[in-house]
Amino acid sequence: MVKVKKIEIIPLGGIGEFGMNCMGIRYGDEMIIVDAGMGFPEETPYGVDISIPNFDFLEDYRDDLTALILTHGHEDHIGALPYILKKFNLPVYASRFTAALADKRLDEHKMLDEVLLHRVKPNDVAKIGSFEIEFIHASHSLVECFSLAIKTPLGTLIHTGDYKIDDTPVIGKPYDLKTLAKYGDEGVLALLADSTNATVPGRTPSERDVIPAFEEIFEQAEGRIIISTFSSSIHRLQIIFEIAHAFDRKVCVLGRSMLKNVEIAEELGLLDIPHNTLVELGESRSLYADEIVYLVTGSQGETRAALWNLATSTYKGLEIEKGDTVVLSARIIPGNDKAISRLIGHLYKRGANIIEEKRRLIHVSGHASQEDIKIMTETARPKYVVPIHGEYRMLFRHKEFIKNHVEGYTDENVILIENGDVLEFDETGARLLDKKELNRTFIDEESLGEIEYDVIRERKKLAYGGAVSLVVTVNKKTKELAGEPKLSFQGVAGIDLTNGVVSDARKTITEAVEAMTKAQITDTNLFQENLRVHLKRFLQKEIGTKPVIVTTIVEV
Amino acid sequence: MVKVKKIEIIPLGGIGEFGMNCMGIRYGDEMIIVDAGMGFPEETPYGVDISIPNFDFLEDYRDDLTALILTHGHEDHIGALPYILKKFNLPVYASRFTAALADKRLDEHKMLDEVLLHRVKPNDVAKIGSFEIEFIHASHSLVECFSLAIKTPLGTLIHTGDYKIDDTPVIGKPYDLKTLAKYGDEGVLALLADSTNATVPGRTPSERDVIPAFEEIFEQAEGRIIISTFSSSIHRLQIIFEIAHAFDRKVCVLGRSMLKNVEIAEELGLLDIPHNTLVELGESRSLYADEIVYLVTGSQGETRAALWNLATSTYKGLEIEKGDTVVLSARIIPGNDKAISRLIGHLYKRGANIIEEKRRLIHVSGHASQEDIKIMTETARPKYVVPIHGEYRMLFRHKEFIKNHVEGYTDENVILIENGDVLEFDETGARLLDKKELNRTFIDEESLGEIEYDVIRERKKLAYGGAVSLVVTVNKKTKELAGEPKLSFQGVAGIDLTNGVVSDARKTITEAVEAMTKAQITDTNLFQENLRVHLKRFLQKEIGTKPVIVTTIVEV
Repeated sequence: MVKVKKIEIIPLGGIGEFGMNCMGIRYGDEMIIVDAGMGFPEETPYGVDISIPNFDFLEDYRDDLTALILTHGHEDHIGALPYILKKFNLPVYASRFTAALADKRLDEHKMLDEVLLHRVKPNDVAKIGSFEIEFIHASHSLVECFSLAIKTPLGTLIHTGDYKIDDTPVIGKPYDLKTLAKYGDEGVLALLADSTNATVPGRTPSERDVIPAFEEIFEQAEGRIIISTFSSSIHRLQIIFEIAHAFDRKVCVLGRSMLKNVEIAEELGLLDIPHNTLVELGESRSLYADEIVYLVTGSQGETRAALWNLATSTYKGLEIEKGDTVVLSARIIPGNDKAISRLIGHLYKRGANIIEEKRRLIHVSGHASQEDIKIMTETARPKYVVPIHGEYRMLFRHKEFIKNHVEGYTDENVILIENGDVLEFDETGARLLDKKELNRTFIDEESLGEIEYDVIRERKKLAYGGAVSLVVTVNKKTKELAGEPKLSFQGVAGIDLTNGVVSDARKTITEAVEAMTKAQITDTNLFQENLRVHLKRFLQKEIGTKPVIVTTIVEV
Repeated sequence: MVKVKKIEIIPLGGIGEFGMNCMGIRYGDEMIIVDAGMGFPEETPYGVDISIPNFDFLEDYRDDLTALILTHGHEDHIGALPYILKKFNLPVYASRFTAALADKRLDEHKMLDEVLLHRVKPNDVAKIGSFEIEFIHASHSLVECFSLAIKTPLGTLIHTGDYKIDDTPVIGKPYDLKTLAKYGDEGVLALLADSTNATVPGRTPSERDVIPAFEEIFEQAEGRIIISTFSSSIHRLQIIFEIAHAFDRKVCVLGRSMLKNVEIAEELGLLDIPHNTLVELGESRSLYADEIVYLVTGSQGETRAALWNLATSTYKGLEIEKGDTVVLSARIIPGNDKAISRLIGHLYKRGANIIEEKRRLIHVSGHASQEDIKIMTETARPKYVVPIHGEYRMLFRHKEFIKNHVEGYTDENVILIENGDVLEFDETGARLLDKKELNRTFIDEESLGEIEYDVIRERKKLAYGGAVSLVVTVNKKTKELAGEPKLSFQGVAGIDLTNGVVSDARKTITEAVEAMTKAQITDTNLFQENLRVHLKRFLQKEIGTKPVIVTTIVEV
């Protein structure tokens, strides 16, 4: 059988949602995976910590899988790494910094020794079967990030990863448009491009553009300065260290992820901490207020992070005081508004001066805005554009923008895909195959185990109405009640143990059993279900609640 | 005993939070309540629909309570009305429109006949014991709203309610600054003032300012127009009816609250619907696309509202189609970002053209911005300012703004209070008394009943880890096991009924019972607790989960 040459693009996550970026790219019977990110699901009340793509979906391709490529080290690109590698032990390609962050995740899962991690540099080319992948240096809020040029016999794909076109980053070089242009000249089949900021007009400011505002803050602050930012914003950290040094302030780093990332970035020579600038918490307390900067986690109002604890007197040995200047150098991630507002309330109550992102340029995005998207598209000049990384709204606006502002792009060659789609390219063109159902997988990070959908569904019911345990004991032979029915209530509203509802319920069940035939009781399943229905109706009528009812029959 | 004359301000809700506005104002042994609003708690997964202030707190003042005054008809000011009136049957004072909305709530609770509702007009004065209350016409996004001038023998309080200084509202007159100025001239002791928009610079645009953008939208739209806005934004509805009429489009109203509010506002002569403009759904479908406007609920992405249903093919007889223009004429209430983004994704997928608030002036706030706050303060010229209505962050910024931009105000006479505080005024000045603990009350709107805090706490545990029911049967005399322990699992992760965890658990329990002394089994509480601990440890070790464990002992 002659196989038709084709490329398949199979997104497992990150398309039509924020987070969980993961994509399969297949040529013939070879398949590489780009990124294995985690997501931040709304199911946290149900014991879920993170979500990951449904890697079971890849079982059909098990024999084809050849490698996993990581574009950069953000959690939404590498957070699911241990979980995919447990199922498919693939060699991994990543930059040194991304690899260091990946090691951290693998170590938590005690998998460090089992994984083959290739550390690659910009413009390295990895030959993986029929794929030839060049790692293109990309600018982003993180360091050592890549766009990928993925050469196949059928044509070249550019996967942007997350990027911005930063002409003056703080650490490392600007986005490598030259290499991108080379591929543009040779011909690009498809550009798979970050859509996160596709609704934002203009250019994304450079990482360097926050410097003036920070200098001003340091000039004005008379007391301590506490700066909260994403621990992965390495450019930002570099800026803060340098300005602190210039203003004769020491820097004390607080919060686990911030400490770890500073350590990794310094070890790799990416973060250049001026001599004698870094101090421990103990030493920091012996300094005057105008001699210290705290660099802390918790910009999203997370109640377990350093800033929250500092604001609520739950951090050991330090708290926010009147005269402190607190700088929230991060965007508000949708869904965190309320938590951040509460945090700010606590900070104000303590008399801190708060500097928020909205009011001063103390944060810039790491993602391409519309004019950056234009530069990207015009440089790569792809036959097709495929918006990735973003909610459907962003993907759609990405498409609209390109159609309206970049010549040569129409509804025909800007293709919107969704998780579970298969987008096929061959010599005749591109086509979207039938979408496959693709659920997420929920993870409990404490046990590191998966939580099944059914379990979540049951937990939602328990949360909503509580639970009742009903135990009915019957005589094995006579099929008559042997003792009173027993009831236990958990999280049921309107049950006042003194007001008779419980004894009335017991009575209802007793009467129900007495009215049943022997046959109805002999069939345990039927008996259980009958009892459940009786109790359900009683509770609905008496107290208007619908708890989960668990019935146990004891035969004696 | 000679009583010292004093006024006490006792906020029950709305201070340091969004929603649930309610305040007690006491002079001597008389107390009035201003507003009884509901809140929108985050506990919805736990069967909670709304929160209301803890009215039990008022029990201490039962004999003092004389009246309930409603400033306006928004749910965060009247939503708790049935609940407070069930506990304290007070006469209520409200505008006709507010009263009509209140009637709707009371009707749901079948309380219409039990409540004495005084309908008042602007500049009416109600004499309630020692209080003399003038209702001052206030502009807001709703109609027939009041600020209150509350005269007491010790001085006059101004309670702004929710307000904006709208010089050109669509319906009704501008804010009645003249009456306010009269009180300013006479002397105002304290101004209790809305802080919702205290972080927003400048003036709040007039309700009328959205007209140009709407006209432009109507000019450009070739297909159907679907406009979603808050059903209480009566000015907005008036504008849409008028522009629709001018552009020869009929209007079809969809969504229960929108239909109801249009009906009430029209009945009271507030909403002036041009002749022949309103059509039913059936008739609307026989019109051409450029002859119809749908006015729908669901601007916040609520999955039970009309717009969501129209976007997901779940509305009977109508759905969004390619060529439709959907106008989201409302702000994004914090916490709703994700739902709205999902809604917009659905709309884009259907090929609709979407017009969002961020991109065009199709929504204006109903609350005073900083320059409005300045006008309010300078007109009332109070001795004290007390910021109300808002999260602590807004209250704080309100204070900062006044201190920095209105002459004569300092830390001494701008007083920040919180729910549960008692702020006392007497002839010598103002002071803040000890704060009282003041929990919210959660309501299940289906049963219309309260949900206790303990119940919520239990439901959170059930949600987080699921539940296990363990039933152990022992012989009454020998205290030995009479049959196998029985286990039922609900929402427990990692339990695969085929992999032996359940039978191992049963074995663990059996062995534990066999190892116990007769005395340990005889004490039922001790026995139950012992079994719970054994099962807990087993599950923690084997599958890493911590479900709620309910143990039942059956003696035979």
